[in-house]
Amino acid sequence: MEIVRPTLLLDKNIALRNIENMVSKARDLHLNFRPHFKTHQSAEIGEWFRAAGVNCITVSSFTMASYFADNGWDDITIALSINIPEIPEINELAGRIKLNVLIENQEGLEALQNQITWHTGVFIKIDTGYNRTGIEANRTPLIDQLLANIQKSPLLQFKGFLSHTGHTYQANSTHDIFSRHFDALLKMKALRTRYQNEWPDLMISLGDTPSCSICDKFDGVDEIRPGNFVFYDLMQYKLGVCKLTDIAVRMVCPVIAVHPSRNEVVIYGGAVHFGKDSIINIDGKPLFGRIIVNADDKKILLDEKNYLHALSQEHGILKISPRDLNYFKPGILVEIIPVHSCLTANLMKEYLTTEGDVIRMMPFA
Amino acid sequence: MEIVRPTLLLDKNIALRNIENMVSKARDLHLNFRPHFKTHQSAEIGEWFRAAGVNCITVSSFTMASYFADNGWDDITIALSINIPEIPEINELAGRIKLNVLIENQEGLEALQNQITWHTGVFIKIDTGYNRTGIEANRTPLIDQLLANIQKSPLLQFKGFLSHTGHTYQANSTHDIFSRHFDALLKMKALRTRYQNEWPDLMISLGDTPSCSICDKFDGVDEIRPGNFVFYDLMQYKLGVCKLTDIAVRMVCPVIAVHPSRNEVVIYGGAVHFGKDSIINIDGKPLFGRIIVNADDKKILLDEKNYLHALSQEHGILKISPRDLNYFKPGILVEIIPVHSCLTANLMKEYLTTEGDVIRMMPFA
Repeated sequence: MEIVRPTLLLDKNIALRNIENMVSKARDLHLNFRPHFKTHQSAEIGEWFRAAGVNCITVSSFTMASYFADNGWDDITIALSINIPEIPEINELAGRIKLNVLIENQEGLEALQNQITWHTGVFIKIDTGYNRTGIEANRTPLIDQLLANIQKSPLLQFKGFLSHTGHTYQANSTHDIFSRHFDALLKMKALRTRYQNEWPDLMISLGDTPSCSICDKFDGVDEIRPGNFVFYDLMQYKLGVCKLTDIAVRMVCPVIAVHPSRNEVVIYGGAVHFGKDSIINIDGKPLFGRIIVNADDKKILLDEKNYLHALSQEHGILKISPRDLNYFKPGILVEIIPVHSCLTANLMKEYLTTEGDVIRMMPFA
Repeated sequence: MEIVRPTLLLDKNIALRNIENMVSKARDLHLNFRPHFKTHQSAEIGEWFRAAGVNCITVSSFTMASYFADNGWDDITIALSINIPEIPEINELAGRIKLNVLIENQEGLEALQNQITWHTGVFIKIDTGYNRTGIEANRTPLIDQLLANIQKSPLLQFKGFLSHTGHTYQANSTHDIFSRHFDALLKMKALRTRYQNEWPDLMISLGDTPSCSICDKFDGVDEIRPGNFVFYDLMQYKLGVCKLTDIAVRMVCPVIAVHPSRNEVVIYGGAVHFGKDSIINIDGKPLFGRIIVNADDKKILLDEKNYLHALSQEHGILKISPRDLNYFKPGILVEIIPVHSCLTANLMKEYLTTEGDVIRMMPFA
């Protein structure tokens, strides 16, 4: 397939290797592996996980749960604290698969209890420091109360405590990632210790890509749920979590114009293709992607003085050092390593594999 | 229709009024009105423009041109400097409608000349200071050369000079917008003066929403192409370009959790719904949206101490002042005025009108 407009290229072999590595790691550490499918959002890529032995998954919305249930996944955790208005639809889904939901307050639990008619697994969402959602691990009176109420509903099965240590993404070093992960382990272990007599089957579920990629200690953890690792991206690379050669996706974009007077190259490829997440480059400015060019049929990764430095709706602007400007002319294609593969994939809605196959993602619902 | 997950609500009456105002303004100033359809990307909303007398449009990609051509638009300018790999498809489209493309370099022009087999209009893209794409207005040797080459191709019809004064979006005051617009007018007028003897029919085309909304002087301009004005958004409001009551879109999002300990409310509604454009709030922090709540069946716009202050993939975090926290509880819906309606609409892919109709946007191509 000839590429004529912004296209998300997926190196299947790298993705398969990333999957295999994480499957092996989970197996070696005796952890249940419930990968997060919000990164790829694709039934076909889901099959790559199934072939590697995965049989349960995590998703970030009911819509996504429904899509993957329709594609043969029958054990799904919706890792978004229960969205009360969706409970009727969630209940319907619980009637046909093994479904787990998250609660973090009485309102959510009560709404579930009032409306659910099928067996549903319930995790209590714990905040281990990310400060987005969940209950701080030391708020045991609230947890006690939720557990007491869960017990009143025979249809609700308490599964355990779940957390997303998302503040590993704000770490300044890999040491920082270890430290935040270790802190999360301690908090979750305290919950296990306190509640395991009454709930001997309770599970501890953790899972962000940074800690699952580089940490080896998962004491007291039963399940991991990383997602981004299937593709990785520049954000993970900057965190020290992956190598550049572990990144499975690239945006391929045509060059529209070259402006030597300001050391800039304009590509067709903008905010509607990449999303707008950035990391800070060595010059202190936001970087939206690293650049790979072709020269004599060889791919060359340009250094960090060359980068995608601005995005408008359809255009991207590359800052290019004078000595590298000769790689660019209107009409050629360049490859950009994206900063945040989850959001880029979500916008592109399909992949072109290095083998030339087109893989669709879930349709807009 | 009951709203149970993030939904883009469109007030049709406001959008119709915004369209009518811009149509009247263009008529009063004797300007051809070629609105940019990249903001709404919807055939149905396109019909609202047609009903107001619009018969030619601007789009930002070949894909979008193709979609609107299939929906009855036969006079379209693709306002992206020619993307060489797409020329075969562009040529096919030029065979069935009146199509204008943009060039800004010899490579683009030559590729067009070599491949085009249908009459095609050509604008030369001028950079009036935005520094994204286009030729600086004073680079007349390059312009001379392009015009000489255009004349060699009987199929290419030189239409005139086109610019997007996009740096009005970086203005610090409405005075700044006037000043940048006036500067663009001078540059474009200089081109008209220089080239109008040889090209008496040449057009000058400008068109960003800030200047088209608040400036009244368009001397020497023949055509305007604003797009965002159909919905407006917080970015335009902050620029002083529209009133809050001119903003036609809202995101409706369910509340997931309330965290009084840190004055935060979590909504279901994240980067995959809003996009990640932000403006700077009064506290110096990024603001991703303003908040409207319901109280006693009345809608209340909360002040700027309350705002959408962070987005992850599916979650948004609202900063809420203590006295306003009681408006929020899990399961209720809140409305968020988005910062950049173009990118939010692009992600949501459909609208729910205040009359309860669902309007689809162009499908992913």
